[in-house]
Amino acid sequence: MATAAAKASDSRHRFIEAAVRLFAKHSFAGTSLQMIADEVGVTKSAVHHHFRTREELIIAVIEPLQEQMQAVIEDAKAQRSRRARAERLLAGFVDLVVGHRSLVPLLAGDPGTVEMLRAHAASTDMIECQVRLLADLEPGPGGLIKARVALAGIACGLGPDVGDFDDETLRRHLLEAGRRVLGLRTPRACR
Amino acid sequence: MATAAAKASDSRHRFIEAAVRLFAKHSFAGTSLQMIADEVGVTKSAVHHHFRTREELIIAVIEPLQEQMQAVIEDAKAQRSRRARAERLLAGFVDLVVGHRSLVPLLAGDPGTVEMLRAHAASTDMIECQVRLLADLEPGPGGLIKARVALAGIACGLGPDVGDFDDETLRRHLLEAGRRVLGLRTPRACR
Repeated sequence: MATAAAKASDSRHRFIEAAVRLFAKHSFAGTSLQMIADEVGVTKSAVHHHFRTREELIIAVIEPLQEQMQAVIEDAKAQRSRRARAERLLAGFVDLVVGHRSLVPLLAGDPGTVEMLRAHAASTDMIECQVRLLADLEPGPGGLIKARVALAGIACGLGPDVGDFDDETLRRHLLEAGRRVLGLRTPRACR
Repeated sequence: MATAAAKASDSRHRFIEAAVRLFAKHSFAGTSLQMIADEVGVTKSAVHHHFRTREELIIAVIEPLQEQMQAVIEDAKAQRSRRARAERLLAGFVDLVVGHRSLVPLLAGDPGTVEMLRAHAASTDMIECQVRLLADLEPGPGGLIKARVALAGIACGLGPDVGDFDDETLRRHLLEAGRRVLGLRTPRACR
């Protein structure tokens, strides 16, 4: 028999899943707690019981992605050369994007979310860190602009109809695109 | 003395400018006609006189960009080789993005807008056309994925703090990033 805690965790999970579907369709700003309640088939106060505001729900949605990205950054930082750091960051970022196809383009592209995320120092630091690890490959504005083009292109390039490609095809070409922008050679083992 | 028509055109222009500022800050979905009225310092019904819905206003904002993009596509199509077509499209797209720094990332990244734009056949055709002209450079999924990474990276890569770079620096590096993704060489005259 499910305990009360297990039931609560299950509801929470259902709200998060419904939120992800609606965010992908209507953006963060265009999705209300009422819409999430309707999608799950409960009252708005049932959602309120778990998430007091839409912001709380958004944070619950993106927390696992942030943790994964933080691990990628730590791993990249531990590498010895600039190229190895950039390569590790790029590969980890591509894996994250491919693993969360529907959600990542939103995080990168929705200005409402970007603004909200900026309020969380950890998240801003993380994006700064990603950019810096890639921008290191070329001095001056060129490195910075290319780092951003690579990250944004990988994160936002997937339209809703990219679902046609399997994960491996997508991963391979996104990684190649990123490497090209940054002027990284394809490592021998991956050829 | 300003005629009634000139005054109306002037108000219309002021609403569009206020809308662009608010869209950049709060996304399309997060901006209401009331917020636009407040920004200009008029009543909501004054805005209503020019734009019945937020959608009408969004369309008025993006129409000039669409016209510019359509001209770029026509020019690219008229080129003889695949490389020349891709090069022309890329350069025209970069010019458009740099010329509308604050607005373009929204159009590319906001799913609410993307969905609305999809309803306009002309706009969907235009994006398809852009992708196709670039994807032609490499057969299979690789060409398609790289075309999208290039376009999205150029459109979404500009964070709010990219304002630090002058237009020429931005243009040069965005173009180089796009060429690299697509495997285009830098034309001799531009080196």
